[in-house]
Amino acid sequence: LGSRPKPGVGRDRRVVLLAGGVGGAKLADGLQQFLAPGNLTVVVNTGDDFERHGLLVSPDHDTVMYTLAGIANRVQGWGVEGDTFANSEMLGKLGEETWFRLGDRDLAVHIVRTRQLQEGRRPTEVSGDLQRSLGVRSTILPMSDQPVRTRIRTDEGWLAFQEYFVRRRQEPVVREVCFDGIEVATASPEVLAAFEAADAVVIGPSNPIVSIGPILAIAGIRSAIGAARKRGAPVAAVSGIVGGRALRGPADRMLSSLGHEVTALGVARLYADLVDLFVIDRADSALEPAIEGLGVATKTTETVINDGAARRRLAAVILEALD
Amino acid sequence: LGSRPKPGVGRDRRVVLLAGGVGGAKLADGLQQFLAPGNLTVVVNTGDDFERHGLLVSPDHDTVMYTLAGIANRVQGWGVEGDTFANSEMLGKLGEETWFRLGDRDLAVHIVRTRQLQEGRRPTEVSGDLQRSLGVRSTILPMSDQPVRTRIRTDEGWLAFQEYFVRRRQEPVVREVCFDGIEVATASPEVLAAFEAADAVVIGPSNPIVSIGPILAIAGIRSAIGAARKRGAPVAAVSGIVGGRALRGPADRMLSSLGHEVTALGVARLYADLVDLFVIDRADSALEPAIEGLGVATKTTETVINDGAARRRLAAVILEALD
Repeated sequence: LGSRPKPGVGRDRRVVLLAGGVGGAKLADGLQQFLAPGNLTVVVNTGDDFERHGLLVSPDHDTVMYTLAGIANRVQGWGVEGDTFANSEMLGKLGEETWFRLGDRDLAVHIVRTRQLQEGRRPTEVSGDLQRSLGVRSTILPMSDQPVRTRIRTDEGWLAFQEYFVRRRQEPVVREVCFDGIEVATASPEVLAAFEAADAVVIGPSNPIVSIGPILAIAGIRSAIGAARKRGAPVAAVSGIVGGRALRGPADRMLSSLGHEVTALGVARLYADLVDLFVIDRADSALEPAIEGLGVATKTTETVINDGAARRRLAAVILEALD
Repeated sequence: LGSRPKPGVGRDRRVVLLAGGVGGAKLADGLQQFLAPGNLTVVVNTGDDFERHGLLVSPDHDTVMYTLAGIANRVQGWGVEGDTFANSEMLGKLGEETWFRLGDRDLAVHIVRTRQLQEGRRPTEVSGDLQRSLGVRSTILPMSDQPVRTRIRTDEGWLAFQEYFVRRRQEPVVREVCFDGIEVATASPEVLAAFEAADAVVIGPSNPIVSIGPILAIAGIRSAIGAARKRGAPVAAVSGIVGGRALRGPADRMLSSLGHEVTALGVARLYADLVDLFVIDRADSALEPAIEGLGVATKTTETVINDGAARRRLAAVILEALD
């Protein structure tokens, strides 16, 4: 009593994963499979949240939640498996913009979230209830209880993130990224406690600019990761750039237009001051010496994890490399 | 120019119908079929409005709207034909009460309404947009732009109207009815203009206590009907009680427990000071002398109007009797 519990090893580690949407959700799935139940906490980007039809939609959060609940639509990468779109069709008839299509089941989450937030509950509490209802056995934490909204400057002007990402299909060149509200957003008590209890921290293969970037920009999170390292909890990051291309989404073009090298090395440079281990794909093994030159250990493995077994295997490889 | 248009006759009459849900919607359908396009205005009860899942639901309004748009579910009497319930099932999984089931398509209306009201638009304006989107060629007007909420006192205490009507399936005995907000609610400019332009007014076969009652209790509506009669626009009412029973819903039990006679005569007494003509079913022809004793003309006809042809016929009979 009162003494610090012995740090876990292997599947008994308590792991905090930083994640955006689909890529982060896949690794979360692998970690949830590998770790003892309850040992995974996912701190998820909420900079891509936005209002649709008066409802608060939290796409990265919900992708992670549906994935960990086992109800995610694997083909499209977002939404609920087998969902229908009767509501969206009717919204269209009523003159609403429907470029961000919300499934009938998915919509229920946004309805419940919106009402509970209007009643004054914190996003972290609302998320916890949703996870319990859906039987998620890990913990998903919004990066902050304060709203942060990612905006993208393009040659068409500033766009809300989802306008850039969905409506404009990531076509405009990204000139600048900002996170509205970031200066007053703080890590929630739950996020800080998760880092405090962590035996390891993993930064997922999500977009380093617009998925991991907002999380790391929240006051208190970089220092919480630093404190974890100081007490011996190692930090790994997984490259979402493989063979010079993003596994999914616009990270490659975004890195390029913002002046970063579009390789695993370019990503490693963004995380070098934060991590002990950088995990890259076999396709990028030639980059090992350069990454290690940044003072970061490397682990080269299979990082394309579309099926459940591959996800679990990557989780195991990362945690074994950290041991 | 500046002169009053010649009053219409037959299908050129401009008719204002006072209506609740299903019964009123059926007569609205008949009148819309019979009258020249645009000549029907339905002033609809909003006392049964309520909040579900943070959304404003307006059941009587929407039953009339879906009926006049030709998309109402005729079997259940509410909601949209062919609607699905994926959202409602998911809401249930998320712990929401789902005794008031909202279809996926129906829900789109509540989402749009709620957001537009939050943006500060008037219910009458929001309703107008919804009607245009759905191709309604008549005009539906909420009875007021101010919220009115019907509550029912039962031996279980005061219940919100939909709690009594849907959740408790109209089982508790009705001891008292009140309309919260009625003392500050006023007829909208559009409602007053409709009465001003009317060549005839019809009170539908809706529940006289909780459907027509709130409309008549709105400041300005009784006097607008009185002004219409003074300038020669006749007023008819249709009995929703046939053979001592309500065609639908709890009107018969409600009239009884509140001390009214449960016959067409009992309903006629409630409207005697307002109407020129009272329309009753052939089953109640024996009541003609007693109703005429109230100083009200009677018309006896077929008032059970489940199919479109019967609805149109009843509309024609009423308007011919008013000519």
